[in-house]
Amino acid sequence: MHEQHPTESPHAAESSAREMAASFPNSERVYRAVSHGGLDLRVPARRIHLSDGSSLDVYDTSGPAGVDAAAGLPRLREAWIARREPGNGGCVTQRHYARRGVVTAEMAFVAAREGCTAEFVRDELAAGRAVLPANRCHPESEPMIIGRNFLVKINANIGNSAVGSSIDEEVEKVRWATRWGADTAMDLSTGNDIHATREAVIRNSPVPVGTVPIYQALEKVNGVIEDLDIDLFLETLREQAEQGVDYFTVHAGVLLRHVPLTSERLTGIVSRGGSIMAKWCLAHHEENFLYTHFERLCELMGEYDVAFSLGDGLRPGCIADANDEAQFAELETLGELTRIAWEHDVQVMIEGPGHVPMDRIRENVEKEEALCGGAPFYTLGPLTTDIAPGYDHITSAIGAAMIGWHGTSMLCYVTPKEHLGLPDADDVKQGVIAYKIAAHAADLARGNTRARERDDALSKARFEFRWEDQFHLALDPPTARSYHDETLPAPAAKQAHFCSMCGPHFCSMKITEDVRRFAAEQGLDEGRALEEGLRAKSEEFRAGGAALYGTDREARAQEPEPVEAGAPRVAPPD
Amino acid sequence: MHEQHPTESPHAAESSAREMAASFPNSERVYRAVSHGGLDLRVPARRIHLSDGSSLDVYDTSGPAGVDAAAGLPRLREAWIARREPGNGGCVTQRHYARRGVVTAEMAFVAAREGCTAEFVRDELAAGRAVLPANRCHPESEPMIIGRNFLVKINANIGNSAVGSSIDEEVEKVRWATRWGADTAMDLSTGNDIHATREAVIRNSPVPVGTVPIYQALEKVNGVIEDLDIDLFLETLREQAEQGVDYFTVHAGVLLRHVPLTSERLTGIVSRGGSIMAKWCLAHHEENFLYTHFERLCELMGEYDVAFSLGDGLRPGCIADANDEAQFAELETLGELTRIAWEHDVQVMIEGPGHVPMDRIRENVEKEEALCGGAPFYTLGPLTTDIAPGYDHITSAIGAAMIGWHGTSMLCYVTPKEHLGLPDADDVKQGVIAYKIAAHAADLARGNTRARERDDALSKARFEFRWEDQFHLALDPPTARSYHDETLPAPAAKQAHFCSMCGPHFCSMKITEDVRRFAAEQGLDEGRALEEGLRAKSEEFRAGGAALYGTDREARAQEPEPVEAGAPRVAPPD
Repeated sequence: MHEQHPTESPHAAESSAREMAASFPNSERVYRAVSHGGLDLRVPARRIHLSDGSSLDVYDTSGPAGVDAAAGLPRLREAWIARREPGNGGCVTQRHYARRGVVTAEMAFVAAREGCTAEFVRDELAAGRAVLPANRCHPESEPMIIGRNFLVKINANIGNSAVGSSIDEEVEKVRWATRWGADTAMDLSTGNDIHATREAVIRNSPVPVGTVPIYQALEKVNGVIEDLDIDLFLETLREQAEQGVDYFTVHAGVLLRHVPLTSERLTGIVSRGGSIMAKWCLAHHEENFLYTHFERLCELMGEYDVAFSLGDGLRPGCIADANDEAQFAELETLGELTRIAWEHDVQVMIEGPGHVPMDRIRENVEKEEALCGGAPFYTLGPLTTDIAPGYDHITSAIGAAMIGWHGTSMLCYVTPKEHLGLPDADDVKQGVIAYKIAAHAADLARGNTRARERDDALSKARFEFRWEDQFHLALDPPTARSYHDETLPAPAAKQAHFCSMCGPHFCSMKITEDVRRFAAEQGLDEGRALEEGLRAKSEEFRAGGAALYGTDREARAQEPEPVEAGAPRVAPPD
Repeated sequence: MHEQHPTESPHAAESSAREMAASFPNSERVYRAVSHGGLDLRVPARRIHLSDGSSLDVYDTSGPAGVDAAAGLPRLREAWIARREPGNGGCVTQRHYARRGVVTAEMAFVAAREGCTAEFVRDELAAGRAVLPANRCHPESEPMIIGRNFLVKINANIGNSAVGSSIDEEVEKVRWATRWGADTAMDLSTGNDIHATREAVIRNSPVPVGTVPIYQALEKVNGVIEDLDIDLFLETLREQAEQGVDYFTVHAGVLLRHVPLTSERLTGIVSRGGSIMAKWCLAHHEENFLYTHFERLCELMGEYDVAFSLGDGLRPGCIADANDEAQFAELETLGELTRIAWEHDVQVMIEGPGHVPMDRIRENVEKEEALCGGAPFYTLGPLTTDIAPGYDHITSAIGAAMIGWHGTSMLCYVTPKEHLGLPDADDVKQGVIAYKIAAHAADLARGNTRARERDDALSKARFEFRWEDQFHLALDPPTARSYHDETLPAPAAKQAHFCSMCGPHFCSMKITEDVRRFAAEQGLDEGRALEEGLRAKSEEFRAGGAALYGTDREARAQEPEPVEAGAPRVAPPD
């Protein structure tokens, strides 16, 4: 086997370096060499160089940079895929290999990304507790894993519901979302050029791509829901699987008998796919064809290794409808379907709500685990209140962080435009950053020590007044820097030993430095602090303390110039 | 007693109506008449008028509008205060009256605001489980209550740490923060004109005002921490109490023996007041004078009814330092001080962290309750990760919502500029909105049915495509409207029966409308859905269903014009 590595032209690498430098100054993409069965895997990370000579490697989703969109990304996994033997019925899923004890190159790759053994990855996949989305027709993707015993992942939605978005724009969206940290991308396009757009997106996506195939199926019948049928749907699945879609949202759990359970709801059915299938069921008075023909879906998806993302078509659309009978009836059906998919060795994750008050979030995770045999949970938010349209990235980041802590494996982002309009580039970034926060907070709460390294590095930089390092370690370095510049624009302020908020003589960290220096000079420790002798030392300190008091007085002289009038300036919390 | 009501001049009322209309269209400030012991109390609310003729009253902190800043707000409580008899030592605290079984006008007022009985308010105050900050020298304030059995409150910090901010600007900050929902304001000024600024702020603040008096005391000794002493501090307290400050943050729990406990911390002492007192203790090798003279503080504060906000000078400043020995040692001391203050009938709340990972948040509330006898908890955030400077309103809104749910009574906001610079007007608004979200999410999780009314009203408006009502019910109506306008600017779109995100034929709510109409026409209910006869009805529906299918087709024709190219447009989540 030949070594697999991204082919980056010198020119492209140069432009990519500029892009990366703008978003992540002092960072570089590095590859860790991992040897696996004769293959040399190159596992990516972003290395943040710090001013003290150390560095921190962080998980990186941005993919090889500087690649021409027309050519597409390097086909990283092509050789890995080529050398594998399919199972019965052509099954090539990661679950298939895992259950037979095989560690694939993809498993070795994600193990290196996650910091665990490849055997652990294999066992989690075999047990159904994790999903490694890796369509054999999307060899450009860098393997990643979704499961409760791995880092919490986030998904960003792209695609356009209006006509007229160019294909280049869609490719740019994937690059933008993954640059800021999206672990997967769902292409929810419903407009023109749906096939060509998806092709361009997949060829340029370094992360797994999900879709909701019913949207394209509906386009094929001109929007007439009742004209949908299983053959048309399977044809659509095949088309998308051949292009390399890594997971399909399928609303196979919306059953005819569930629909009346939504009749007393405040906001009915809010999933597009769910409402489409509900209408189809009612109009035909037949059971959902995705449910009745579910095994045919499994067979097809096994041939490509497309994972199921079993859609929660009856998820609650408001606080009032949370955790109701309709929602949990569907979840029970999703559990039934999970077992069928597993029998076919197809990978499965389960989609979750939606809108849920904080006190009812945990119940969702517990029910999902119990009903769906531990398949990874993939939730939209949930939003913890309905009263803040325009800020639903925040109402939902609260719920996302909590549900992530309780065991959700992937969080589907929500942008500030949710419920109101179509997100633009900045909205996508706001959504991704809010969800990186939620996912990371969940990783910390789960006790992930590797995740903690970044918090500790940033806090240490903060305490040591290494401003540049604080920016470089931040989720969004340019924003952190620009906020600092607004108050203290002078370059010298980046070396200042005081907080920009408080000024030098009120800076607690500055005073703590003084306290520690005094303590060190005097040999203070906890025991000694209680000793009588300390009083004498304290007097020495006062008598000879000009330097310390002097520091305060000198610091006053360095106090920052007042900012310009106009915008009110407000002090930070004590 | 005469009726107390705001004196609004016709001119001022007119300008205020314009201001309110800009931020809260279709809203008006209303007063509910409450009779109490011969007084006619006028309890404010904001009434949101909806397009269906109904209205919703929401809690309102904005105060009487259109008042000249030089004249100050009407002295609402002046007559209430005048007719009360002080207790021993001149004690006039709400706790004093509550413990003697007296229901004050303030208690009756907050009971009406909260929707409970005045006796319940009294009993919570007497038990120390709530604080009603109401300095007798701040008669302009509209009474509010902070306690675990009431709505969760939020505090906004104002004040300026640089020189040169005008007094008018500070007044404008209070108006701005309370317009968006701040329940109290802390004036953290440390610059020039500190006395005059505070005077203007208090005379124009409809909400209780808190301060950290050590800041001004330190100004009086030219920033030389070691020169601080109890007499200077008490003189400063008296000065500020006379002006009408409603609660004082006092770092009396930072003891000499606690300081060494911080020596191994990643970020030491991050509270300004805490670091000042730690330095004072070490330099003098004496116990904190705020601790040793605590009863003198109690006596003074009882004369005015200034509440203690016992500062957590040793709160953790990063995830690594959360819930450590230093933090909880101080908390134990705060419990000891709480009991002393209560003996003097002085009201007490307890400040809390800071930076805490989600899995360790609950422990903070439980320890505070146990150690401090149920005194209200007042927390800063907490931030749930350190890695997102520039977004700490979000990292902390997650923690604030959770700690609010678990029992915290007031949440001190954090703005996007935290750790980086001084917040401007928009940052203040971002901080307030993020914290209104957190507080409201906590109210919902605590099962507050009144809080739920707003979620339900907004969700109902959403389901019924009443776009204007959605905006009017939102926490930030202008932002919600502007986001909708970006995608669908035409006025007609505000009447459209489809989501702006999905367009008409993919709108789940639109399809649900169709499903429900069909169900209603056919008399569908859960039982009937399972009946054989439904199949026949379904066939009728298909045969006669032109209207329904037609709706879809017609809807396609109404599909919104594509938005302008340039900004990438991304589809919402399925």
